[in-house]
Amino acid sequence: MSGSLIVAGLGPGAEAMITPEVAQTLAEATDVLGYIPYVARVAPRPGLRLHPSDNREELDRAAQALELAAAGGRVVVVSSGDPGVFAMASALFEALEARPELIGLDIRILPGITAMLAAAAAAGAPLGHDFCCLNLSDNLKPWAVIERRLRLAAEADLAMAFYNPRSAARPEGFARALAVLRETCAPGRLITFARAVSTPDQRLRTVTLAEATPEMADMRTVVIVGNSQTRRLGDWVYTPRFYPAGTL
Amino acid sequence: MSGSLIVAGLGPGAEAMITPEVAQTLAEATDVLGYIPYVARVAPRPGLRLHPSDNREELDRAAQALELAAAGGRVVVVSSGDPGVFAMASALFEALEARPELIGLDIRILPGITAMLAAAAAAGAPLGHDFCCLNLSDNLKPWAVIERRLRLAAEADLAMAFYNPRSAARPEGFARALAVLRETCAPGRLITFARAVSTPDQRLRTVTLAEATPEMADMRTVVIVGNSQTRRLGDWVYTPRFYPAGTL
Repeated sequence: MSGSLIVAGLGPGAEAMITPEVAQTLAEATDVLGYIPYVARVAPRPGLRLHPSDNREELDRAAQALELAAAGGRVVVVSSGDPGVFAMASALFEALEARPELIGLDIRILPGITAMLAAAAAAGAPLGHDFCCLNLSDNLKPWAVIERRLRLAAEADLAMAFYNPRSAARPEGFARALAVLRETCAPGRLITFARAVSTPDQRLRTVTLAEATPEMADMRTVVIVGNSQTRRLGDWVYTPRFYPAGTL
Repeated sequence: MSGSLIVAGLGPGAEAMITPEVAQTLAEATDVLGYIPYVARVAPRPGLRLHPSDNREELDRAAQALELAAAGGRVVVVSSGDPGVFAMASALFEALEARPELIGLDIRILPGITAMLAAAAAAGAPLGHDFCCLNLSDNLKPWAVIERRLRLAAEADLAMAFYNPRSAARPEGFARALAVLRETCAPGRLITFARAVSTPDQRLRTVTLAEATPEMADMRTVVIVGNSQTRRLGDWVYTPRFYPAGTL
């Protein structure tokens, strides 16, 4: 007997941002796996086994989820935000590629509100024009790739959202990213630091590139860099939909 | 007496993807404005005025919403997907910039599941590594900007999500985009055409760049182009989290 495996996005933190399909899935699960603080967001109940695990154990977690589903469980792997954005969906398929005999399993990915879009909504509309979404962690790619993408994104005058801008283990990465931006963008470019969006700890701060410092970001921060047209309007930050000819 | 103005994302189509905070906001609204098919997704009830309007009337709609809120209404502007991604949030701030005396209004933006993330979840995890999000419509920017961004995104080996790939009025844009991709990416690059995701009309189709034709996209399609590492796994398409050194 074979069960099911769902990778579900819990959104950025607020209960009110969890979609009904994800809530329903959690209500029907026999097993929930995920990073410790995400599993802690799932209410315990009889018949539900919680399997919290540490960060950087994504592949092991995905492999365990496949086993539990193959054994008949209704298994849910929870991600913060959206599972398809630097989260568990790709890890699951990596694990599945190593177990091709399980490809026929009943698998679904359920989207969630990803951090950059919750942050953008709280700030105004800084991602209202073309943008890119970059993971600044060099755990899974060389730093040279990150730096090259930053330079090309700046050249394309894309707004940018950065996930994992700064970790305790490698605090220097974000300082290097700011240095690249200073070489490629005007000092007045707007940068929004959005920490713990939609939770009681939410804090938003928008500064210019000239004012930005590495300490403004931590592990719970999403950073949004505007494009050349991004502007302030009262406390809001937004990027117009139109883009003037001759700018790029 | 001043009211409130909320710009809310309805997600890609399925009721089960509308967040509870958006559902609650609609239940409390006095006025709902939006593009005709989006307003049609809001159930009528006594005390609720529906104000559907046509496409390309975003600025007028935003100005009307500001007026209704300033007059005391609990006004909701609905967008499909997420209001901050090529939708009504930026249009609202453009209208507000023209009416600076209204900057103190009670305004909130509520995120939603944007089409590219619902499409990615349905396909697997094609956006599981760094990616960009481009609007292929040249209504509000010169085509040269779109083409330059496509070339730079390909050079950065970003996965790409395209909104508005092809309209009835300008069907040639997507053919030009495909031509640029053929100059910059290998013919085996995977492209997913995701139409009407999460609705009964949903249709997913993944082909190689060599096989892709302009007719595969229409106004209801989001197009996702993988990066050089994106692969098939059974019926799934996913982009690994890791990125090998020396590739870029």
